[in-house]
Amino acid sequence: MAGLLDRRELDFLLYELLDTAALPGRPRYREHSREVFDTAIDLFARIAAAQFAPYYRKGDVEEPHFDGERVHLIPETQVAWDTLRASGFLKAHCDEAEGGLQLPEIVLRAAMAHLMVANGPATAYPFLTLGVINLLRAFGSEAQKARYLGPLMDGECAGTMALTEPDQGSALGDIRTRAEPQPDGSYRLFGQKMFISGGEHELSANIVHMVLARIAGAPAGARGISLFLVPKWLPGDGDGDIDVEAAGTPAARSARRNDVALAGLLHKMGQRNSVTTVLNFGEAGGAVGYLVGAAGRGLACMFQMMNEARIGVGLNAAATALRGYRYALDYARSRKQGRPASHKQPLSPQVALTAHADVRRMLLAQKAYAEGGLALCLYASALFEDERTHPEAAARQRAGELLDLLTPVVKSWPAKYGFAANDLAIQVLGGAGYTREHPVEQLLRDQRINAIHEGTEGIHGLDLLGRKLRQHGGAGFGHLRAEVAATVAAARAEAVLAPLAVALETHWRLLDDTSTALLAAQAADIDRALANATAYLDVFGRVVMGWLWLRQACIAVRRLADLGAGADGGDGAGAEDEREGASEAHFYRGKLQAARWYLAWELPAIVPLCRLLGDGDTVAYEMRDAWFG
Amino acid sequence: MAGLLDRRELDFLLYELLDTAALPGRPRYREHSREVFDTAIDLFARIAAAQFAPYYRKGDVEEPHFDGERVHLIPETQVAWDTLRASGFLKAHCDEAEGGLQLPEIVLRAAMAHLMVANGPATAYPFLTLGVINLLRAFGSEAQKARYLGPLMDGECAGTMALTEPDQGSALGDIRTRAEPQPDGSYRLFGQKMFISGGEHELSANIVHMVLARIAGAPAGARGISLFLVPKWLPGDGDGDIDVEAAGTPAARSARRNDVALAGLLHKMGQRNSVTTVLNFGEAGGAVGYLVGAAGRGLACMFQMMNEARIGVGLNAAATALRGYRYALDYARSRKQGRPASHKQPLSPQVALTAHADVRRMLLAQKAYAEGGLALCLYASALFEDERTHPEAAARQRAGELLDLLTPVVKSWPAKYGFAANDLAIQVLGGAGYTREHPVEQLLRDQRINAIHEGTEGIHGLDLLGRKLRQHGGAGFGHLRAEVAATVAAARAEAVLAPLAVALETHWRLLDDTSTALLAAQAADIDRALANATAYLDVFGRVVMGWLWLRQACIAVRRLADLGAGADGGDGAGAEDEREGASEAHFYRGKLQAARWYLAWELPAIVPLCRLLGDGDTVAYEMRDAWFG
Repeated sequence: MAGLLDRRELDFLLYELLDTAALPGRPRYREHSREVFDTAIDLFARIAAAQFAPYYRKGDVEEPHFDGERVHLIPETQVAWDTLRASGFLKAHCDEAEGGLQLPEIVLRAAMAHLMVANGPATAYPFLTLGVINLLRAFGSEAQKARYLGPLMDGECAGTMALTEPDQGSALGDIRTRAEPQPDGSYRLFGQKMFISGGEHELSANIVHMVLARIAGAPAGARGISLFLVPKWLPGDGDGDIDVEAAGTPAARSARRNDVALAGLLHKMGQRNSVTTVLNFGEAGGAVGYLVGAAGRGLACMFQMMNEARIGVGLNAAATALRGYRYALDYARSRKQGRPASHKQPLSPQVALTAHADVRRMLLAQKAYAEGGLALCLYASALFEDERTHPEAAARQRAGELLDLLTPVVKSWPAKYGFAANDLAIQVLGGAGYTREHPVEQLLRDQRINAIHEGTEGIHGLDLLGRKLRQHGGAGFGHLRAEVAATVAAARAEAVLAPLAVALETHWRLLDDTSTALLAAQAADIDRALANATAYLDVFGRVVMGWLWLRQACIAVRRLADLGAGADGGDGAGAEDEREGASEAHFYRGKLQAARWYLAWELPAIVPLCRLLGDGDTVAYEMRDAWFG
Repeated sequence: MAGLLDRRELDFLLYELLDTAALPGRPRYREHSREVFDTAIDLFARIAAAQFAPYYRKGDVEEPHFDGERVHLIPETQVAWDTLRASGFLKAHCDEAEGGLQLPEIVLRAAMAHLMVANGPATAYPFLTLGVINLLRAFGSEAQKARYLGPLMDGECAGTMALTEPDQGSALGDIRTRAEPQPDGSYRLFGQKMFISGGEHELSANIVHMVLARIAGAPAGARGISLFLVPKWLPGDGDGDIDVEAAGTPAARSARRNDVALAGLLHKMGQRNSVTTVLNFGEAGGAVGYLVGAAGRGLACMFQMMNEARIGVGLNAAATALRGYRYALDYARSRKQGRPASHKQPLSPQVALTAHADVRRMLLAQKAYAEGGLALCLYASALFEDERTHPEAAARQRAGELLDLLTPVVKSWPAKYGFAANDLAIQVLGGAGYTREHPVEQLLRDQRINAIHEGTEGIHGLDLLGRKLRQHGGAGFGHLRAEVAATVAAARAEAVLAPLAVALETHWRLLDDTSTALLAAQAADIDRALANATAYLDVFGRVVMGWLWLRQACIAVRRLADLGAGADGGDGAGAEDEREGASEAHFYRGKLQAARWYLAWELPAIVPLCRLLGDGDTVAYEMRDAWFG
C-alpha cells in the first residue's frame, strides 16, 4: 500500500542484513522471539495506517495555531497520540520492571519507521517524549524518575528538548538561559528558547521540558551548562501527581502553571503538524526547574538525547524518502507517456514511464537513497542495542565506538540524500509533482528540516572530522575498516560481485588515506584542516553507503542462488514471472541492481573530492567577506 | 538592496563579459547608446522595486482562487501588470515601425532579470505575453498581426502557450486536441489543455491562447500538429477590436466569449502568484481558432516560443538563485554565531557566520551557481541577438548554431544549480531559513518548477545528446570548442590563471571524447546510447559553466592589474579597504575566487561521469520494472 513502509523491505533489513532474530538469545530478550517482534511491529504498522497516514495532508494544510491562550492542533493529532500511548509504544523498550515490554531498540525503531513513513511530522510528539524518557532513565534522580517517568511512559506527559536560543543557534556553549538555585534545592530559570518542537499543546496533561541553562556563577562555555527538568504544570499539592482527569482543562486542575510561556509559534516550510515554538522561561518570577544529573554536565547528559535524536532524524529522513520513492514508483508504473527513441511510430501505444531509462535511473537513485538510509539507521540501532546488551564486553565497547563514529553520518546522509530522493520523486511526476494534488511536494518540504535540526550538515562535518575520527584513539575508524574488509572479502567470493568489491576496496583506501592526511593536517592548522569538513562528511557517507549496499548485494546474490535464479534475470525473465518465487527473485535482483547503481554512480564521486581534501584546498577558506561584494 | 538584482553584477555581465556596448554600432541600434540601454534597464529596475518586489510574499500566501465564475488575483498583480504595460515593456524590443523602442534582446532580458529577482512568479504574465508577441510577429498572417499585435504589445491582451494535455505530458506528438476547419477559414477546437500558466485572469481585457491541435485528418505524431490562435474574447462586431473600456466587465462588452472554459486551477508548491489552469476548449460547440503558420508546422512554429521561453526559464532560475544568495549573504554577515575551531575561548565574542569557512563555501557555491546562471542566460541572449542582427552572415549563422546547441543547457543548468543555490541559502540561515519569516523557503519552492516546465531535465538531456549535438553537422559543438580554446589560450597568458586553464582544457577534452563516443554509440543502439543522457547534460553543463567562469576570471585578473591590485589581496587587504577602488578590487577578487571554486570543486565531478558515459554503463538501462518490488 502506498504511503506505508514495505514490509518485505523491512524484513530484509531486520532479518537478513541485520541479525535481529538472534536477539532473543540475549538474557534481556529471552522471553521474546521473532514472532513477538513481528507482532509488535505489525501492531504499530496498523496504527500507522489507521491513525497516522490519513491526516498527513490535513496536518500540512491546517497547521497549528495559537489563539493567544491555547494552541490548537487538528483533532486527528490527538487521536493518533492517544492511540499510540494506549498501545504502550512509549514504554515498549522499557524494562518489564518499569512497566515496559522490554523490546529491543531496533524493533522500536522499525515501528517508528512505520509511523514516520505514514506521517513524519506527527511523530515529533512521541519521538521527543521517548528521548526524554531515556534521558530521565539515564540521569534522573530516583525522585524525578518516580514522579515523571510513569506519566511520560503512559503519555500523560509529553517531552521536549529545549536547547537552542535566539542568539546562539548551533553554538550551544553560548546559551544564556540562567538558573538560580533556591533553598529547597530547585532552581528558577530565566531565558528564551527557540525552535522548540512540541513546546506547547494539549495532547497530554503535562509537558516536561528538558532545558539547558547556566547556573548563576557557572563558568562560561560548555562546562558551565546544566540540564534541568522544567514541567509545564507543577504539582499543586506537593505530591507531584498529574491530575489526568483534568487534562486539557487547566482551570479544573489542582496543579499550577509553571512560569513557562509561549512566546509564539514558528511557521515552517514543512513539518507543519509538529508545533514549533518560542518559549519564555521566567517572565513572571522564574520557571521552576530541577537539576538533572550533575551541575555543569548538562551538555554531556543532553548528548545522550541528541545522539538518539540524531538516529531518529536519519530515520525520519529515510522514511520520508521511502514514501516519496514508493509513490513515484506507483505513478511511473501507471502513467503512460511517450516512447523509447527506437520506437517513434506515432501510432504505437505510449509506454509506461518505467519504460524510459531515465525514469528508471531516477527510481533507482531513490531506491538507493531511501532503502540505503533505512539500512544505515537500522544498522545504527543494532549498534545501539549491541552497546547495551551484547553479551561480550568487547563487542559492547566496539559497538559503542562504531556508533559514535557513525552518528554524524547516520544523521546527515539520509537527510541529504533523502532530500535528493524526494526531489527526484517530484521530477518523476513532472508537472503533476509540482502540484499539491500529490504528496511529493509536501514530502520535499517536510524532508528539508532534516539537514538542519539536531546539528546542521556543517556541524556534523566538523564533528566527524574534528572529533569522531580520532575519538577512542581512532578505534571506531579501525572497526569500520575491518567491517569494510570483511564485506569486500565476502563479495570477492561471488564472481558477479567481484567488480563491486574492487570498487569498494579502492574507494575505501582513498578515504583511509585522506583521513590520515586530514588528521595530520589538523595538528598544523586546525581551521584550515577543517575548512572542507562538510565535503569530508559527504565522502565518508558515500563510502559507508557503498559498504552497506555491497553487504545487501552479497545477501541478494546468495539468496538468488538459493532460489536457483540467475543474478541478471537471464533471457527468460518473462517466463520466470510465472514461476514460484519470482517475486522473491525480483526483490533480490532489485537489491543487486541498486547496489550496482550506487557503487558505479555515487561512489566514484569521492575521487575528485578526496584529491581536494588531500591537497588541503583553500578556496573557501581564503575567500573573504568583502569579496562577496 | 536585498531582493533586487545587483547592478554592479549586471553591468559586469553586460559590458565586461559581453559586448553589449558595441550594439549601437549595428544599424538596428544606431539611434541607441549604452546610456539608452542603462536608462531603460533602470526604469524596469525601479518598476521591479516599486511594483513587483513588495508583494512577493503576499502573492505566495494569497494564491489565485476561482469562485466558479471568475479568477481572483491579489490587486497588486493588477497594479504591477498595468505599470509594466504602461512602461512599454511588452514592446520595448519591437521595431520602431511597430510602435516599439527597438531595444536589443539582451537589454530586455536584463530588465526581465530585475523583475524576476523581485518577484519571479509575477513575471509569468508578461513573460508569456512577450512569447506570443514574438510568435505572431514571426508566423502570424498580416491580418492576425493587425488585429492582435497591437493589443498584445500594449498589454490589453495577454498571452498563453497551450501545449500540454493531461494524457501526454512531455510527449507533444501525442496531443489530441482537434481542430475542425470551417467554411470561413477559421477552425473549431475541441480538447483539454493542462498546466496552462495565465490561462484565465482579468489582468487584461483579452487573452490570446496559442494552442497546438490536430486538424481533422492530419497524420499522427508531430507532423500532424498545427498552431492556432484562440482568443478568450471574440470580436462581436466583426472588426476584432478589443473593447478596452470594458476590460474586466464582460457583461458590458460588445465582444463575445469564445468557447474556452476554465476547468479548474492547479494548486502548486510555489509560483503561486502565477495562475496555472486546466482549460477546456469546445465544450459548447467548438472554440474559434485561427491557424498560425502552415498546417502541420505547429510544433516547428511553437519551438520558436519554446526556445525563447527556455532562455526565460533559465533566467528565472538564475534570478531566483541570485535573490536567495544575496539574502543569505546579508544574513550571514549580520548574524553572529560560534567561533572558529582555533578560537574556542568561551568569553571571546561570537563571530559573523561569514567567518566560518563552511559558510563561505556555501556562499561561494551560491555565487557560482547564481551569477554563473545569469551569465549563461545573458550569453544566450547575446547569441540570440547576434543571430538576428550581427552584420556578418557567417556570424549570424554561427550564433544560431551555438544557441541551438546550448539551449538545453541554458534551460537546465540554472534550474538544477539554482535549486542547489536556494537549498544552500536555507542552509546558511539554518532553522530560521526553514521558517516562513524569511523568503528563502519560498524561493526554493518557486525555483522547483524550473527543472520541469519547458521540458524536464530528462527531455533536455535527450535533446542535447540525441539531436543538438549532431545538429548542423555538429557545427555548434565545433564553435563551442573554438570558444573554449580561445578562453584557455587567454587564461594561459595570465600566470595566476594557468592552472585553471589547464583544468578547463583537460575537462573539455574529456567532454569532447565522450561526445564522440556517444555519437558513435547512437548508431549501434539508440536506446542504450541515450540511457544516460541526463548525466551527459550535466557533464556538458559543468564544462560550459567552467568555461564561462574562466572567461569571467580572465576579465577579473586584467581589471585587477589595471587597478594595481594583486589577485589575492595580499597581506595588506585590511589597509586596502581604505584605498580608492577597493570595492572594485573586492568585486573582481570575488569573481576570481568563484571561478577558482567552480573549476576546483564542480568541474572535476565530470571525470567519473565521463567514464561511465564512455563505457556505456547500462545499470539504469537494464533495470526492470518488476525488480523495483
